[in-house]
Amino acid sequence: MNALDGLVEELTRLPGIGRKTARRLAYYLVKRSNDGPRRLAGALERVADQVGPCGECGNLSDADPCEYCRDPRRDAATVCVVEEASDISAIERSGRFGGLYHVLGGRLSPLDGVGPDDLNVARLEERVAGGVAEVIVATNPSIEGEATAAYLRRLLETRPAVKVTRPAQGLPVGGDLEYADGVTIGEALVGRREMQ
Amino acid sequence: MNALDGLVEELTRLPGIGRKTARRLAYYLVKRSNDGPRRLAGALERVADQVGPCGECGNLSDADPCEYCRDPRRDAATVCVVEEASDISAIERSGRFGGLYHVLGGRLSPLDGVGPDDLNVARLEERVAGGVAEVIVATNPSIEGEATAAYLRRLLETRPAVKVTRPAQGLPVGGDLEYADGVTIGEALVGRREMQ
Repeated sequence: MNALDGLVEELTRLPGIGRKTARRLAYYLVKRSNDGPRRLAGALERVADQVGPCGECGNLSDADPCEYCRDPRRDAATVCVVEEASDISAIERSGRFGGLYHVLGGRLSPLDGVGPDDLNVARLEERVAGGVAEVIVATNPSIEGEATAAYLRRLLETRPAVKVTRPAQGLPVGGDLEYADGVTIGEALVGRREMQ
Repeated sequence: MNALDGLVEELTRLPGIGRKTARRLAYYLVKRSNDGPRRLAGALERVADQVGPCGECGNLSDADPCEYCRDPRRDAATVCVVEEASDISAIERSGRFGGLYHVLGGRLSPLDGVGPDDLNVARLEERVAGGVAEVIVATNPSIEGEATAAYLRRLLETRPAVKVTRPAQGLPVGGDLEYADGVTIGEALVGRREMQ
């Protein structure tokens, strides 16, 4: 296989990148100079060398403990559980959470053979035993995410001192009632709050 | 900047890759092991080391002359002119062309400051002078592609021995008349052929 086809092959392994897009990206990279592919290669090598899971929370970071776990200003008594490290930046973008994180590394999925032992759960129990007041289970509002949340709630029931919560479901801010699905509208009605 | 943000930064330079997609790809690459980023980095380094323009036709290849220019079974009297090296694989996929290629490296675009001197035109004239019977101008059927085709036709008019052609325009195979635009239907009618 020639070098260009080899690059196309590697690019098609990425999620959401089909053969046509991979071909377009590969040609784009080599078209002007050798600089494009080399810069991206360098960035990838640095990631391979430096980035790994945080021993505390499982976040992907080039430091261990990661930037959140070693930040003394963050509230260590509140832990937000997410499925993937990439979910952390989504929550950080909200600017409304000042606690620590815990990355499960996936969700329970019996069909894919993913059970509790495949997730970063044992370390969560250790952390909770070490004095956590609230665990916010922010797994995705999908069927598997909900099942994972239910599993964690049952697991943590044995520790009544720990409050287990889940982010509210409802209408997205700026959304349109007309375009919302019935389940979301139902959740929004059930979870309605008195106006201040 | 940490390594992960550095990779996201490099990925957003690619066409059609926004910040969200770049972030998703970066996390995907590092999630499982160090192997993912290293394989892609290796493929990129090989491309940077080995791939360059063919001195004959301008195709991007890891050999010079490229695989088409050095294939003795291909008809050297017919040259198909394309805008980009990536167009070659599209034409090869048709399985209906057995001649050689010539890559312009772009199209005429006065607004972007791209004139004839910025394209691989001088080498085309040399090749045509060396005994080419037909030049198929397969620039894109866009305004700029048409202008580039018209420019090349005028340029090659000085050599009456050379036939200059352009791929037919018409309805796409498997397309639906109802969804075709008026200009395409018009071209299809003007270029109508007697049924066999």
